[in-house]
Amino acid sequence: MSIFELLHQDGAARTGVIHTAHGTIRTPAFVPVATRASVKALDARDLRATGVQVVIANAYHLHLQPGEELIAHLGGIHRFSGWDGPTMTDSGGFQVFSLGAGKEHGIGKVASIFPDYEETHLKPQGKSLVRITEEGVYFKSIIDGSTCFFTPENVIALQRKLGSDIMLVLDECTSPLHDKVYTKQAMERTHRWAIRAQEEFARLSDADNFPNLNQHLYGIIQGGAYKDLRRQSAQFIGDLNFAGLAIGGSLGKSKEDMYNVLEWTVPFLPTMKPRHLLGIGEIEDIFATVERGIDTLDCASPTRIARNGTVFTRNTLHQRINLRNAIFKDDPRPIDEQCDCYTCKNYSRAYLRHLICASEISFYRLASLHNLYFFSQLMEEIREAIAAHTFKELKETWLAVDYEMEVADPMENGGGG
Amino acid sequence: MSIFELLHQDGAARTGVIHTAHGTIRTPAFVPVATRASVKALDARDLRATGVQVVIANAYHLHLQPGEELIAHLGGIHRFSGWDGPTMTDSGGFQVFSLGAGKEHGIGKVASIFPDYEETHLKPQGKSLVRITEEGVYFKSIIDGSTCFFTPENVIALQRKLGSDIMLVLDECTSPLHDKVYTKQAMERTHRWAIRAQEEFARLSDADNFPNLNQHLYGIIQGGAYKDLRRQSAQFIGDLNFAGLAIGGSLGKSKEDMYNVLEWTVPFLPTMKPRHLLGIGEIEDIFATVERGIDTLDCASPTRIARNGTVFTRNTLHQRINLRNAIFKDDPRPIDEQCDCYTCKNYSRAYLRHLICASEISFYRLASLHNLYFFSQLMEEIREAIAAHTFKELKETWLAVDYEMEVADPMENGGGG
Repeated sequence: MSIFELLHQDGAARTGVIHTAHGTIRTPAFVPVATRASVKALDARDLRATGVQVVIANAYHLHLQPGEELIAHLGGIHRFSGWDGPTMTDSGGFQVFSLGAGKEHGIGKVASIFPDYEETHLKPQGKSLVRITEEGVYFKSIIDGSTCFFTPENVIALQRKLGSDIMLVLDECTSPLHDKVYTKQAMERTHRWAIRAQEEFARLSDADNFPNLNQHLYGIIQGGAYKDLRRQSAQFIGDLNFAGLAIGGSLGKSKEDMYNVLEWTVPFLPTMKPRHLLGIGEIEDIFATVERGIDTLDCASPTRIARNGTVFTRNTLHQRINLRNAIFKDDPRPIDEQCDCYTCKNYSRAYLRHLICASEISFYRLASLHNLYFFSQLMEEIREAIAAHTFKELKETWLAVDYEMEVADPMENGGGG
Repeated sequence: MSIFELLHQDGAARTGVIHTAHGTIRTPAFVPVATRASVKALDARDLRATGVQVVIANAYHLHLQPGEELIAHLGGIHRFSGWDGPTMTDSGGFQVFSLGAGKEHGIGKVASIFPDYEETHLKPQGKSLVRITEEGVYFKSIIDGSTCFFTPENVIALQRKLGSDIMLVLDECTSPLHDKVYTKQAMERTHRWAIRAQEEFARLSDADNFPNLNQHLYGIIQGGAYKDLRRQSAQFIGDLNFAGLAIGGSLGKSKEDMYNVLEWTVPFLPTMKPRHLLGIGEIEDIFATVERGIDTLDCASPTRIARNGTVFTRNTLHQRINLRNAIFKDDPRPIDEQCDCYTCKNYSRAYLRHLICASEISFYRLASLHNLYFFSQLMEEIREAIAAHTFKELKETWLAVDYEMEVADPMENGGGG
């Protein structure tokens, strides 16, 4: 039985519901990143107040610290973290990529166009810390330098112990600088790993010492920015018995490439499986990917930029302002006058600017609360528009601002007291 | 009319109520430090949830950033910060001390016995950045190095613009290494400044452009660790028309010295004025100072140690544990099983330890919430005990633990994963 219920379609965009043991996810949904079982600066009650429906933690990071045995011992990731809503776990494929080819190539998924990856992956950072074999992948722990070995099987066991609702298989994520020959080899290895993961997932399902017996496994589609490989991977992974499908790996060298990858991939995916896109979270990307049939997408960006002072607002260039800008010094208005979030209901831009200029850590929480609430509201508008067949109009309303705005760029950091 | 209502006495310890324009303060009360109009890591709703009744901000820091004009323009410190409860502002006398004699002598109020001051004041840090004249005090801004000039008068105007409920006069805080001659000179100057402050306070009270027309002014008693000077200062400042009295300056070289200073000072203070002690916040100090007639005391320590992993618990050595300790790695219990704070109701020691070990900033908030709630509860117990004439028994119950405990020191940082 499918975990996904399709409610409405508007072109390729669609709205529906994903059912999990910890509640439902209305799609399209934005999935904030809780890498170490904590969305940075927020706690579980804060998260619920933002309207967030689901978070994604990282099996790789939790394996290193505090370890899956500990989390299982304490009742699984929901009880451990206090977030009792739907929870996904990424397998660690992307982290392996970051330590391996990403490090050698100095590159992110879409060749540095996303600020998320720019910071850490813009320049080659040295030799790969990873060795990939048919059996699995060896890598160095970022905590203590010890050697770890991940296999498709042990990554399933790891996530069984974490007890997330939606698990992702181990994949090999290639970089836009890998050639087609290597990308194809890696894709085929990812396909073989998918089958092994599925077998292990089935084998471990009867064990009674896992915290969550109603887990679902997503496959990951690879194939880089190559049309025939993406189609091949979509069909191969789509045909396996996964509950959902994630589109991973290199999405090319530009936003155009990313849109192409989605157009080459999504049409070959089974309609009744939810589709997740890993690591995308700009407002224009959300519209572009939902328009191409994506149901859920995760990104660290909204909370990361919040910690740097950047908060979302309607009717401003790129729908954002930077609160460090001196023009907000004595601005008594909330971040966004249309926003009902806790931060906008209680604090002025002037006070928030004071907090970040004074390095007060309460700023990080208040700004993160706003950005996630803002995204939750955006996704709600998108779901309603798809149901009403007005998605295109909504997209134009939101993105038109960028072309109309003629004001000074409020993102500029004006400094000053 | 007195702002203080005395309800019960138990020996020299007393319980009562301080009335302010933003609500009442039941005493004895602990006053968390909100130096820059923010109790670190918490927001106003968090603070209310801890049971905190009153906070103390710092006029010196707010003058430098964001400036009192800005805060006045935005409706005063209550509207600016979102904390609508009673608010005190310290004048900056202690900051001047820190930049001046404190820096030259490398010393805090009580010669380094308090961890609060140890960090910044243990070693001589160079030449004084301060020049004290009869007219006022010149010092360098820690923000941009510019020269500032504080006088008893302009510090009143500054706090009128901030709009706090309880303002403190400008004083000169001496160090335990100052000799009696200098301490006496400084005390006499502080007395002259007190009269000037009071005149300016009266002069500005009719102005209609201040955010809070119902402000009260506290005088500050100096005299170092000299019995005759303390008595002289207590009588001089006590006789002036201040709403309340703070005991400032050097409290000697040991806790014994501090207790002596209180015993030399408090008996000479008018009964009907509330007595504030600046910068004291260990549990044993709270008992020792309340026992000697103190009504309110402020300290940055409970939130500062929280950010370092140290949280209060009953029935442990020194009533505290450090969550970084490896013994809490898989401990499913809350920080304190008798505590009803948000953190204890929702999170385990194991999860909190994971957060601090992973440097997750949500830790700082959850630990600070607990420590302030714990202190609020402690003060509530103290108020009830004074009313019931059982203060001594309560003190013995709390402090006996330190002598009885024979467990390994849970403060020790065991490290590990």
